[in-house]
This record gives sequence, C-alpha cells and structure tokens, in this order.
Amino acid sequence: MQRVLVKISYQGSQFLGFQIQNQGRTVQGYFEKILKRMHKHDVRIHPSSRTDRGVHAFEQYFHFDTELSIEPTQWQYAMNRALPEDIYVHEVTMISNDFHCRYDCVGKTYRYKIYQSVHKDPFQAHLKTHIPDRLNIDDMNQAAEHFIGTHNFTTFCSQKTEVESKERTIYESYVVATNEGLDFVISGSGFLYNMVRVIMAFLIEVGKGKRQAHEVTSLLKAQDRNLVPHTAPAEGLYLERIYLAEDELITKFGPDIRIHKKKSLQNSLKHIDNNG
Amino acid sequence: MQRVLVKISYQGSQFLGFQIQNQGRTVQGYFEKILKRMHKHDVRIHPSSRTDRGVHAFEQYFHFDTELSIEPTQWQYAMNRALPEDIYVHEVTMISNDFHCRYDCVGKTYRYKIYQSVHKDPFQAHLKTHIPDRLNIDDMNQAAEHFIGTHNFTTFCSQKTEVESKERTIYESYVVATNEGLDFVISGSGFLYNMVRVIMAFLIEVGKGKRQAHEVTSLLKAQDRNLVPHTAPAEGLYLERIYLAEDELITKFGPDIRIHKKKSLQNSLKHIDNNG
Repeated sequence: MQRVLVKISYQGSQFLGFQIQNQGRTVQGYFEKILKRMHKHDVRIHPSSRTDRGVHAFEQYFHFDTELSIEPTQWQYAMNRALPEDIYVHEVTMISNDFHCRYDCVGKTYRYKIYQSVHKDPFQAHLKTHIPDRLNIDDMNQAAEHFIGTHNFTTFCSQKTEVESKERTIYESYVVATNEGLDFVISGSGFLYNMVRVIMAFLIEVGKGKRQAHEVTSLLKAQDRNLVPHTAPAEGLYLERIYLAEDELITKFGPDIRIHKKKSLQNSLKHIDNNG
Repeated sequence: MQRVLVKISYQGSQFLGFQIQNQGRTVQGYFEKILKRMHKHDVRIHPSSRTDRGVHAFEQYFHFDTELSIEPTQWQYAMNRALPEDIYVHEVTMISNDFHCRYDCVGKTYRYKIYQSVHKDPFQAHLKTHIPDRLNIDDMNQAAEHFIGTHNFTTFCSQKTEVESKERTIYESYVVATNEGLDFVISGSGFLYNMVRVIMAFLIEVGKGKRQAHEVTSLLKAQDRNLVPHTAPAEGLYLERIYLAEDELITKFGPDIRIHKKKSLQNSLKHIDNNG
C-alpha cells in the first residue's frame, strides 16, 4: 500500500463542511466518491483539519492509502477533472506510511476576512463578513496580541468541544487593514472547536469599543465560555496554512517556539483537533 | 397607484436567472414573494434586462406599481431585510407612471471578466471565467473595435433570438488588462440573446491567435451564426450599467451618438431586448 498526500483548496460557501454527511455537498464526500470509482472499493481520506459549514480553505491536506500505481501528476489530473469548480487539487505527493495528516500536523494558520461598508455587497456574500460599524484596528491588535503564548482556551471555544486538554499555543495573532476592511490572522499549535470564530467575535466587540483589550488575560483565566457569548459567522473564515513538520514552524516562527507534538501524546488517537 | 423604481445588484451564481420559474431561485421570484407578502396580492416587477442563469448584475433596475404609501428608504429597508445575501437593493425612487424600465432603457454596459492562471482558483469559481492560455490583448482590442457602430448582429447572437430587428448600435467595445487577466467592456443600445457571450467567445479565439481581428467586418455582413459557433460561459458576465435616459448616454458617449428609442417604435410592446 502506498500513502498519498493531497494538497487542496476549496471555497466553502456551497459545502456543508469538510466532513462527509449522509447527504449534501461535502469536500470529503467528493473525494471519497472519486476514489471509490477509481478503486472499486471504499477509500477513507484523513484530513489535517475538518472545517465547518461555510468555512473556506486556501490550504488543506489529506492522505489516503492506495494499491493503485498512479503517478502524482496523474492523481492530480484525475481528481481535478472529476471535481466541481469550488475544489482544486494543487499537489499530490507520495509519502511514508507512518505519516498521518492529523497527527503530524504541528500547527495551522487561519485568516478571517471582514469587509466594511455602509451597504452590503452581494459580491462579497459568503466570502467575507460584513461589519458596517467603524472598528478600531489598534485596539483590536492590542487585544489580539494577548492571545499569543500557551493558554487554556475554554473561554474562547464552543462548549461542545470534546478534547482532553484545552491548552493550545498561539504563535502569532494580529489584525491588518485591507482595502475593504481588515483581516485577522492567527497561527497556533492547534485550535479548539469554533475557537477562531469566538476570538474574532470578541475582537469585533473590542473594535467597536464595547470590550477592552486588557480583558483578555482575565477572560482566559476564568475558563468560562459564558463570558464571551458570540461566534463570528463562518463565511469570513479561511484555513490558510497547515504545518506538517516542525521545520516549517521553526522556519516561520523561529527556533524558540513551543511545539506541541501530538504523536508523542500517549492518547494521541483520542486527541482530535477540530477546526477553528 | 404609484410607480416605484428599484436599483439592485446581485451575484448570479446561485440563481437560475432573473426571470421567475416554476421552481428554483430567481431574482424576480424573491422580489415578487416579498411584494406579495407586503401587498396581500400578486405584484409584477418589470426589469430593464433579464439576465440568464449564472449572469451577475452590478446594476440592474426594475419597476412595480403599488397602492401602499411607503417612503423610498422604508421600501429599501424592508426589501433588504427580507432578501438573501446575494441580492442587494441600492436605491428606491418614486417615478412617473409613464416611465417603463424596459422601454425607457436606451442602453446598457456589460463587463466580462476573465482570469488567467495555469491552475484553476476555486475562489474565482462562478465569478470569473478561467482561461489558462495566453491571450494577445492587442489583437483582441483590434477585433473589439470593429463592433463599434450600427450593425446587424445575426452572426453574433443565439439562433433562438426572436426579435424583429437584429440591428443594434455599439457605443464602446474594448478589452483591458486586469491584475488577474482581462475584462471586456461593451456598451450599446441593446443586446440580443447571448450576444455579449458570443462576441466574447470570438474575442478569446482572436486572443489565442485562432481567428483574426479583420474577420469581424465580413462576419457581421454574412449574418450567419454558424460562422461563430462558441458561446463564452455565463459566470464571467456582469450587467454593469443601465441607461434609463438619453441624457445619461450623451453624458457618457458624447452628443453625436445614435440613440435607439424603443418607445417610438410602433411595435414597441413586441420589441423585447434580451440579455447579452
């Protein structure tokens, strides 16, 4: 058996999410249907991250095992030919059988896109989140910085999150002005369920002047989701980068960063990192 | 009864087109449903143009008649509140009862967006047309210029077009480079069914070097659609501007332009200009 690594991107607006459902469009559903047709039997794919309904991915990876002898460029061609317009395969690589897309994922970057205008723009629908109010980017950036480091993120994730540890390390967290509004960029060892969207909702409140940047420290300590009740919409959220090796993280964030190794965890198979 | 003029835009990718169908999402369907709820009876809307499935509109107008006393800003607010994210009402105006959105429309501008890259981009899906080949913009522009003026456009429209006269006047027609590819812009007195998409398909062939700019004159003369068999996809096409008064055309294109007055035609009611 050969393990195959696939790098893809997708525009999430017309998907129920990454993960396959009984019915409806899912990213996993499209790939498994194509692989079943090629293999004449079911083939399971394993992604680095399972994005929610409406969430996009500039970069996402999955792997699968195959008994077929097909060249990487032929895999890419065959899949792209059969995929709908809102998914694209960028690269296919043969990889060692002990590599695992989820457990070898040591970090992720998310980007959240906001556009600001008095009027809604139907051409931004499902691609960016509309915030008509003025947002103070300096205040938002001050708040965003407080998330950097290793914290327990109970306050900033869905109460439905089922993982052993809610501790994660954030490597970067900042807000940057764009032509049409602003982007929030956050990179970390992993993200709990809804974590990026809850942090974003809080930063929007800070931008509007309804909450203060300095609250972050005490909110993190409180470990109480009720203190941050909002969740920003899925449509502005993009999975931007997946780090599949420590080298990539060190190259990007320097040699002193704290790397979380999932494989070294005793219960690694129970440790499921969900999407932001 | 008060006649109400409504200026809207919509992202066409998830619509079966402007015109209402027995089932499925249509722009007309959404507005007539909202108006029926407000009036407690059916209200017909009359657009300046009926765009096809997948075609977008930066600017589109329709009118309807009402017995309700509602202020323009209140109409706008009520409609936007009830509309899905891919339609937006920009302006509502009270207008004289002898104004008619279709028959007072003296011109339109369409824009066709192409992006060029080796790889397909799922974030451009349904918003721009992907052409991986190199296109010669100078050659395309030379060809585009030949359409300016008054011509019979039988060669460059769908054979299904049912209108008395296939003569139209083109005021401007050019190709311009963009960051990601190119746009084709064309303004005219009116457009026959599929006309912009057939011209675009021809210009793409010129850009690839498969056809020559100087062919346009003889193709127009031939009045034979079989000579130009392709139609560019709907996804790249945007209705960009509607001219509802001669003044607007003269301001934009100068005092010497030839204006086609639909209202002065004896059979104006039979004269239906379809979308590009």
